Amino acid sequence: MSRVAYVNGLYLPHRRAAVHVEDRGYQFADGVYEVIAVKNGRFVDDTPHLERLDRSLRELEIAPPMSRAALRVVMAEMLRRNRIRDGILYIQMTRGVAARDHPFPADSDASVVMTARLEPPQDPRLGENGVDVISIPDIRWKRCDIKSVSLLPNILGKQAAHRAGAFEAWQINEEGFVTEGTSTNAWIVDAEGRLCTPPIDEQILSGITRRRILKLAKREGIDFSERYFTLKEAQSAREAFITSTTTLVLPVTTIDDAVIGNGKPGTFTCKLREHYLAFMAAPGGQG
Amino acid sequence: MSRVAYVNGLYLPHRRAAVHVEDRGYQFADGVYEVIAVKNGRFVDDTPHLERLDRSLRELEIAPPMSRAALRVVMAEMLRRNRIRDGILYIQMTRGVAARDHPFPADSDASVVMTARLEPPQDPRLGENGVDVISIPDIRWKRCDIKSVSLLPNILGKQAAHRAGAFEAWQINEEGFVTEGTSTNAWIVDAEGRLCTPPIDEQILSGITRRRILKLAKREGIDFSERYFTLKEAQSAREAFITSTTTLVLPVTTIDDAVIGNGKPGTFTCKLREHYLAFMAAPGGQG
Repeated sequence: MSRVAYVNGLYLPHRRAAVHVEDRGYQFADGVYEVIAVKNGRFVDDTPHLERLDRSLRELEIAPPMSRAALRVVMAEMLRRNRIRDGILYIQMTRGVAARDHPFPADSDASVVMTARLEPPQDPRLGENGVDVISIPDIRWKRCDIKSVSLLPNILGKQAAHRAGAFEAWQINEEGFVTEGTSTNAWIVDAEGRLCTPPIDEQILSGITRRRILKLAKREGIDFSERYFTLKEAQSAREAFITSTTTLVLPVTTIDDAVIGNGKPGTFTCKLREHYLAFMAAPGGQG
Repeated sequence: MSRVAYVNGLYLPHRRAAVHVEDRGYQFADGVYEVIAVKNGRFVDDTPHLERLDRSLRELEIAPPMSRAALRVVMAEMLRRNRIRDGILYIQMTRGVAARDHPFPADSDASVVMTARLEPPQDPRLGENGVDVISIPDIRWKRCDIKSVSLLPNILGKQAAHRAGAFEAWQINEEGFVTEGTSTNAWIVDAEGRLCTPPIDEQILSGITRRRILKLAKREGIDFSERYFTLKEAQSAREAFITSTTTLVLPVTTIDDAVIGNGKPGTFTCKLREHYLAFMAAPGGQG
């Protein structure tokens, strides 16, 4: 069976899925996206993903190219046609095709692209051993709350991490605070044993997994605080971890050269990871 | 005659020119570009444009997809096939197509897209009357020296200018200094009568027209300084103007609500505009 992609109303063989060279997504990064996990044939937290997609479109004043209901039909069809039980769905919407000029075109129709792929289960050793993180300066623009495809600094940061043999890079703003990873949210358990993650503002993306973890923490009676922390505080934290749609919850065992806690995944982290895996497997029963 | 675009080795009808949906230019803004003016059938300052393109690729560690010589052959062919005597050539290069993942792919080939279009001569009233500029905060990333397609803040800024009835927006950094326009460099003639434009650093793009104007100023014995100036200084400057490949040299007559000089294009500005127009018409004799 060959993969199928969706492009503006058409289901196409993945390799033939294309957009015009004057799509503003290609020429101006003038578009937004979402990545939604699929587990046991069901989308994980799809409603908040679609709500965030709407918000991103609103912030860029891109008129939604299709209704929520129509979008859901295509999403389901993409799973069916690609036979995805466990994997990810990628949705990208841009301002569409127009002769290249900076201002918003008067008459372009927003474009929609979807791709889907099977994903093998996450290597369990990542959860058992944890991952290494490096720190880098946060050089991104000032509207990281918009999930746009303007991701050049993110990929440069991720590449720096991989080159250093690390899994992720935490970005440090000019005040010395950790904002987030290049594709994940950042968390610590601080010296008082409180779960901490930076608050929602224009410096970070409001991660859907982040929100879910906060809900699970609340349900479990785990004390948490949405506040900024410095690199130094993170390096001397009891625990640290990252979250995202594709990394789920992964313990961080080193940040630059600092070993976190005893160098093994922390207790809270492992507990939240278990809760999140259980939620993914049976979202209805855990929501 | 229909327009032709170049996409990775093929000359295609413009409307059919497409890139794969997993081109990293489309999904990550992982690419760079140049816009080169064509005047009387000749490229204007093409060598510095191509040198800057090489630099942008180097900064992003994208291997050049073709030699300079091959690129020039395609560029000439694009003018010929599109019968461009006066217009612009757009070149975009990206890291190419790969399954979506943040780090640099191990084996993608960089992609090359070129489009060309006729441009009517600039409306002479723009030069005669000047244009209005608004100020906006500079919210861009910290590597604006790379001419990447990560242009979302630029288009939002340009849109804000147009919505305000202005031609361009000057971006003000956190220290209160003007960096540049959303697609143009910023210039003033200060209270001492000296031509000023921000220096080349990671906050601005090293404009090819900017460089040419500095050369012309030097040739004409016009005193200049590459230094930052505040919005306030710009608003009380004797003259102000913008430069770029497509706007050439345009006088600025208002910045927000402040009238520049006597509200008419300044003397130095008009002189430099004339010199630049003459250079474009006969680059060999003026270089």
